Amino acid sequence: MYKVDLNSDLGESFGCYKLGMDEEVLKHITSANIACGFHAGDPIQMDKTVKLAIENNVKIGAHPGFMDIIGFGRREMKISQEEVKAYVKYQLGALNSFAISNGTNIQHVKAHGALYNMAAKDYELSLAIAQSVYEVDKNIILLGLANSSIIDAGKDVGLRVANEVFADRAYNSDGTLVSRSIEGSIIHDTNIAIKRVIKMIKENKVEDINGKDIDIKADSICVHGDNPKAIEFVKSIKSELIKEGINICCISEVIK
Amino acid sequence: MYKVDLNSDLGESFGCYKLGMDEEVLKHITSANIACGFHAGDPIQMDKTVKLAIENNVKIGAHPGFMDIIGFGRREMKISQEEVKAYVKYQLGALNSFAISNGTNIQHVKAHGALYNMAAKDYELSLAIAQSVYEVDKNIILLGLANSSIIDAGKDVGLRVANEVFADRAYNSDGTLVSRSIEGSIIHDTNIAIKRVIKMIKENKVEDINGKDIDIKADSICVHGDNPKAIEFVKSIKSELIKEGINICCISEVIK
Amino acid sequence: MYKVDLNSDLGESFGCYKLGMDEEVLKHITSANIACGFHAGDPIQMDKTVKLAIENNVKIGAHPGFMDIIGFGRREMKISQEEVKAYVKYQLGALNSFAISNGTNIQHVKAHGALYNMAAKDYELSLAIAQSVYEVDKNIILLGLANSSIIDAGKDVGLRVANEVFADRAYNSDGTLVSRSIEGSIIHDTNIAIKRVIKMIKENKVEDINGKDIDIKADSICVHGDNPKAIEFVKSIKSELIKEGINICCISEVIK
Amino acid sequence: MYKVDLNSDLGESFGCYKLGMDEEVLKHITSANIACGFHAGDPIQMDKTVKLAIENNVKIGAHPGFMDIIGFGRREMKISQEEVKAYVKYQLGALNSFAISNGTNIQHVKAHGALYNMAAKDYELSLAIAQSVYEVDKNIILLGLANSSIIDAGKDVGLRVANEVFADRAYNSDGTLVSRSIEGSIIHDTNIAIKRVIKMIKENKVEDINGKDIDIKADSICVHGDNPKAIEFVKSIKSELIKEGINICCISEVIK
Repeated sequence: MYKVDLNSDLGESFGCYKLGMDEEVLKHITSANIACGFHAGDPIQMDKTVKLAIENNVKIGAHPGFMDIIGFGRREMKISQEEVKAYVKYQLGALNSFAISNGTNIQHVKAHGALYNMAAKDYELSLAIAQSVYEVDKNIILLGLANSSIIDAGKDVGLRVANEVFADRAYNSDGTLVSRSIEGSIIHDTNIAIKRVIKMIKENKVEDINGKDIDIKADSICVHGDNPKAIEFVKSIKSELIKEGINICCISEVIK
Repeated sequence: MYKVDLNSDLGESFGCYKLGMDEEVLKHITSANIACGFHAGDPIQMDKTVKLAIENNVKIGAHPGFMDIIGFGRREMKISQEEVKAYVKYQLGALNSFAISNGTNIQHVKAHGALYNMAAKDYELSLAIAQSVYEVDKNIILLGLANSSIIDAGKDVGLRVANEVFADRAYNSDGTLVSRSIEGSIIHDTNIAIKRVIKMIKENKVEDINGKDIDIKADSICVHGDNPKAIEFVKSIKSELIKEGINICCISEVIK
Repeated sequence: MYKVDLNSDLGESFGCYKLGMDEEVLKHITSANIACGFHAGDPIQMDKTVKLAIENNVKIGAHPGFMDIIGFGRREMKISQEEVKAYVKYQLGALNSFAISNGTNIQHVKAHGALYNMAAKDYELSLAIAQSVYEVDKNIILLGLANSSIIDAGKDVGLRVANEVFADRAYNSDGTLVSRSIEGSIIHDTNIAIKRVIKMIKENKVEDINGKDIDIKADSICVHGDNPKAIEFVKSIKSELIKEGINICCISEVIK
Repeated sequence: MYKVDLNSDLGESFGCYKLGMDEEVLKHITSANIACGFHAGDPIQMDKTVKLAIENNVKIGAHPGFMDIIGFGRREMKISQEEVKAYVKYQLGALNSFAISNGTNIQHVKAHGALYNMAAKDYELSLAIAQSVYEVDKNIILLGLANSSIIDAGKDVGLRVANEVFADRAYNSDGTLVSRSIEGSIIHDTNIAIKRVIKMIKENKVEDINGKDIDIKADSICVHGDNPKAIEFVKSIKSELIKEGINICCISEVIK
């Protein structure tokens, strides 16, 4: 039977600053990547988001990022392996307190923003992330860009891994995402986007930007909840996937 | 048999800023309160300090403080119960990652600076701290000012507690510390200071600032490691306590 | 001729976090208090807000607050006179760069949040704020709660001062604001609120919470721009004041 | 007559964290680059350092860096031109308040750490820095690596520029510094280092790593004050330069 997870970045509010329609999107997804206070989120917000996820029967994951609230973790920083490991462990542990005190546990870790993108292309950086997760809890699943370094690194250190795919992004022939600055990198047509993920799930294939099918494994689809249109898209993709007989379930069930 | 723990605040370096003679003081103490990045310390430093503590057979504790690196957590802040709880859990969890990944566990929690002082006088604040520890791990010991609100709150939520005493500080008749701004609040004579703690340990008494004996329980003595003179004091007090037949051991053994 | 200024706190967005309807409220006010990065705002935002204010012919002021983005500067902190002075100067100078590079200058300074409230009751704290402004630029006007310590301190150091009043807040018999936690502290009826400020401007009187008239000087009215209702209120109060023959102009013209 | 400035990075203490022997090095230098709170320093420290510089008759400059205290501004960050401009203006303005309130003015700006190194190789980044300085105060001198992009950008926007040289660093044939990771990049022999700068000042030449003379202009020599050995070096180089008839004076006099 076909299975896929729907994941979304949540808990990105900070102090009095609100961001995202977390309560809405949580009704539709199966895994939540929760900001841990470095690039977004704060301790109060983390606790609230864990509670909200539990109420909605959504599994939680840590979403560690660079120490850069002003840049929302989207600015590349040149940091050492040692720093990456310590930063990931710190954030993962911080979230874990809220998981424990709310009676749940952390299902997965997914790097955020620039850290995610840099790791996807840099095996050593991916290794630092994967090792830090493994050293804290080897039962945690590493979620990252399908076909990228992070998946390799996760496997190499002995973690279970989950391949993340994007419905609305074009892929290069080597399986990497086409840069947003390039024409055609974003798929604006919802129907096409949905058809692409169905093919990824059922055939493990996606048509690359040159029109040729490439291999891809789709364990989890990244969706957004930061505006009403995004929420609509989540509903659409979910109902279409269900119509196709695809089971929407959390990462740990998908990769079982 | 008489027993007492020697605790010290460690891991207070931050980025390229070095503070404290951690490697020296760790040779002589039995419990380390490790800064968790809010008022001092950083993820790299936390990992290093946990490793150093393990090498020296010293038990580790979380030392949560206010989110105020510039003020070193020594400036009072009016924050809500909800904020205190979330901040303590966050810091405790962050340290826990480094405990786990280094193969150890957190023995105790001791609040830092202004949070410590405010909690000692404010039962509601103490309760918030105690609850947050309990909700994350009820096996953790709460270390705080002897005879103060934090001890009451710890007991009330069901935690094991440890009474901290100060060798070089005068006590008021109600068991609170005499404010540093008052003449006679600091005991400068090392011999007198040491005799006072021996009496606390053996007789559960201390002479207050008015010259009358009051009750005090001494589970752990706070010592410092920020300068060579402080290190000398630690060595002196330790050897004198041992001469008196007092066993120097970690908090969990003292309160067993 | 009657004159009054309308001021509002602006530039409170931070990184990717948006706050406030600055572009809307700027159409109606005469003085903008711009956050300087300590409790809200950031360098990019400060530059944008200065530009927007200039486009709308609105005078700018620095809005220094506590170093506490997560608490939005609303949490009391016990800091020294020396710290207050340095923090105010730092923030004032930072904003001044954006004033200069955009061809304008700083008209006024108004403390934010907890710093504003604490200063209103604490002459020493007010003095620290007033001195720091005076030492940087003695031509800057100090805007603060009417009848409060900040006004006294401003005058005492030799600054021009401007009395700020609140249309929607009840006053105690000593001219201080009735605490928000007390019943009747907020005036919900827009018409009554507007009538109150008209009386403040024309008669220099306001009815206190006990129903007796007290003296008050109204140089500037604090208005908000964080939601559509607030914008509506600004429009209403402005048009009513104009109908009453009151000239709406910036602080420096009001106190001339 | 031969002239050169001696500059040093100062005011790098932060909160309770002390760094550098500022009081010592200030006795020997002519220009101080003062940290502005982004990568090091804080408002209290900035005020103290400005006062100390004035007491020692040393000219002050702003030393803006990346917003990265934990990394001491030494970690590369990918930030936009707009961000660089706003960050430099913010820091420059902040320092300016302390200059004004202490009765002095800012002589120069020198970028710090990773921002300095990145700008030296990136004309667009240098342009952003130079423009921000020019837009705030076109009388400020831009100090940067001799022969690098920052010098070009400074001239192009209309600023006066000053070429900084390093006594203890090897140069590539194109005038850039040999990376610290390469053998021979650091000149450990004090006598050789001093001879090199004398040649730079008198002949405008330096022998590159390949043994060939290249052109270099030496307006200011970077010296350090973070340890006793560094202080000794500053004294040695100063007395040797004076013996050679070279006048040690501040940047604004050197480039007059």
